[in-house]
Amino acid sequence: MAAAAPPPPPTPAPTAPTMVPEGSTPVGYPLFARIRLAHPSDVPHIHKLIHQMAVFERLANMCTATESSLSSTLFTSPPFQSFTIFILEVSSQPFSDTPLDQNTIYTPDVQVLNLDLPIEDPEKEIFRSGIGDVTVAGFVLFFPNYSTFLGKPGFYVEDLFVRDCYRRKGLGRMLLSAVAKQAVKMGYGRVEWVVLDWNVNAIKFYEEMGAKVLSEWRICRLTGEALQAYGNGN
Amino acid sequence: MAAAAPPPPPTPAPTAPTMVPEGSTPVGYPLFARIRLAHPSDVPHIHKLIHQMAVFERLANMCTATESSLSSTLFTSPPFQSFTIFILEVSSQPFSDTPLDQNTIYTPDVQVLNLDLPIEDPEKEIFRSGIGDVTVAGFVLFFPNYSTFLGKPGFYVEDLFVRDCYRRKGLGRMLLSAVAKQAVKMGYGRVEWVVLDWNVNAIKFYEEMGAKVLSEWRICRLTGEALQAYGNGN
Repeated sequence: MAAAAPPPPPTPAPTAPTMVPEGSTPVGYPLFARIRLAHPSDVPHIHKLIHQMAVFERLANMCTATESSLSSTLFTSPPFQSFTIFILEVSSQPFSDTPLDQNTIYTPDVQVLNLDLPIEDPEKEIFRSGIGDVTVAGFVLFFPNYSTFLGKPGFYVEDLFVRDCYRRKGLGRMLLSAVAKQAVKMGYGRVEWVVLDWNVNAIKFYEEMGAKVLSEWRICRLTGEALQAYGNGN
Repeated sequence: MAAAAPPPPPTPAPTAPTMVPEGSTPVGYPLFARIRLAHPSDVPHIHKLIHQMAVFERLANMCTATESSLSSTLFTSPPFQSFTIFILEVSSQPFSDTPLDQNTIYTPDVQVLNLDLPIEDPEKEIFRSGIGDVTVAGFVLFFPNYSTFLGKPGFYVEDLFVRDCYRRKGLGRMLLSAVAKQAVKMGYGRVEWVVLDWNVNAIKFYEEMGAKVLSEWRICRLTGEALQAYGNGN
């Protein structure tokens, strides 16, 4: 979650296009979607996505992250052991390159969306990634948390964001599902995130994905000067 | 946070005894309190504390943690890099032993409480720790989280528990402050935790400590069979 901000939810997609596994015969305008692990070289794109998310949440003034602060605090541990980012890429052609992380740590997830119309992406050049017309469309940032009751770890999803022109196509669900799949693969007990109480569409969407909303809990946050005071022996 | 359970808050302590730094001249019945890093050898005590917490929260049926599940999932990373536990010990005498972790990673925090009456601990033998009458009185479990808006990590406090006979003496505040101090020391941006919305005493206490309660946010949780379904390609 950004500042006092929501991870913009994957918008409910009642008219979402059919999403089929890679290799199926595409119809209409196919959009190939791939989820892969982020690399340090993705930081400029990640930084732009975070700022777009802040603008979307009308909290741009609270967003002080820089490429430098992200570079120095992310990618400090192997994937899944601490802060981890999945990048969502899209392409009108099948992916011909091999992601750097296509190894034993994570096998990228590829799906094909059959669209009725092609997508006009006004920021295609800014978010170009790799060869061909591969474009970064979104990301999810998550990290391990721990349940003492279960006696095992889980994942906490801090942010999930899909760029405007790629919304309502099931891509947010694809990102969240990728985290859930990884949690199951690792034997973890939970996946958790937060939602704004007035965002009924998002809550409905999450409940349809199988999540429960814990209505009685409130987040407490110690930050800024109030936190710094504890460094002086408060 | 345990299951759907609260980290039992440090109870507001309007009549809390004076807490003074180690080395001050004790008056009345002194209780020496020390916070140190947990070790794998603390797991039996940690397991008992977690189950006492579950009983306190009336959620004992949801607590499936065992010594084995805790041992295999905790202590897998260096302290502060992932799941981290501080143990709270008390003693009627100054601590004469040196904790195993009294090194560069964490310097134990010692305070002295001047009590009007000595504390009767009916479980003193069960929670005996080290030499003399050193007794485990509580714990806090926390781990790094991440703010994309700040572009830096913080700490999330999953559980904070003080055994019944040691409550209302400022020891919960001492545990939470220890996490806040460590966050400041590491240059982290936040400390966060959750509280039940009806627990007005705890909310008041946290606000007095400088925390803000984020009233609009709700936690979403995907667990159990709903989570497992994602492992099958849902």
